Amino acid sequence: MSASDPGFLAALREAQASADEGGMPVGGAIVSSSGEILGTGRNQFVQKGSVILHGETSAFENAKNHPLAAFKDGTLYTTLSPCPMCAGAAVFFKVKKVVIGENKNMSGREEFLRQHGIEVVILNNQACDELMTDFITNKPHLW
Amino acid sequence: MSASDPGFLAALREAQASADEGGMPVGGAIVSSSGEILGTGRNQFVQKGSVILHGETSAFENAKNHPLAAFKDGTLYTTLSPCPMCAGAAVFFKVKKVVIGENKNMSGREEFLRQHGIEVVILNNQACDELMTDFITNKPHLW
Repeated sequence: MSASDPGFLAALREAQASADEGGMPVGGAIVSSSGEILGTGRNQFVQKGSVILHGETSAFENAKNHPLAAFKDGTLYTTLSPCPMCAGAAVFFKVKKVVIGENKNMSGREEFLRQHGIEVVILNNQACDELMTDFITNKPHLW
Repeated sequence: MSASDPGFLAALREAQASADEGGMPVGGAIVSSSGEILGTGRNQFVQKGSVILHGETSAFENAKNHPLAAFKDGTLYTTLSPCPMCAGAAVFFKVKKVVIGENKNMSGREEFLRQHGIEVVILNNQACDELMTDFITNKPHLW
């Protein structure tokens, strides 16, 4: 597992796309147990005013043409440590692993995931960190 | 707290509307600490193919014209005991109470909510139970 993993790169592209749109730079990707990228997505709070389309939930929603069973034992990638809703989604959809870009800007529900038997990998990725740091610095009213 | 509570009745109407549409009969409502119904919603798996618009998350999403702070210390109503994602949403949005129509057809994350200081009320409501029982009986492939 590294920062050159296709699933991670897809999530990072989504985060960058959200930043380019003026949005919260959090991206996600859901990858099947066989390695297929099922869906990717980004936070839509600024863009659509959505309160539930975070990077991770957007990725699941954009994978909705697949049967729910396709998520089972898959890997969820997220550029930022997941909030309680998104961690709950990982449990609900029965993923096996969650790969997190960074957890310096938000310490999410990693222990909750582990308690549910989900492997957690934290990449401490500089690009993810910088996207969030820039956002928090420049748009503190949105954080 | 009773089955004649406006927030609960709004959630139940959403569940009935979903049943009328052929969908999963789960409805939700989010009510502010001052008693204002901020949003209501229903499961959209059948109607829109959505995997993240459950009764509860739909209610939050349909309340998105309100500031996030409006959800704090509010009450989330749901006709069915919440899944991990929806229980996580209740924690994320900092509600004070979750009122559940029934938990016979799905035993949701009630203990998780209590662990986060959220009051949980279970109504054991017959109408909610019957809606879900009918759905599971008649559409087992969707459950």
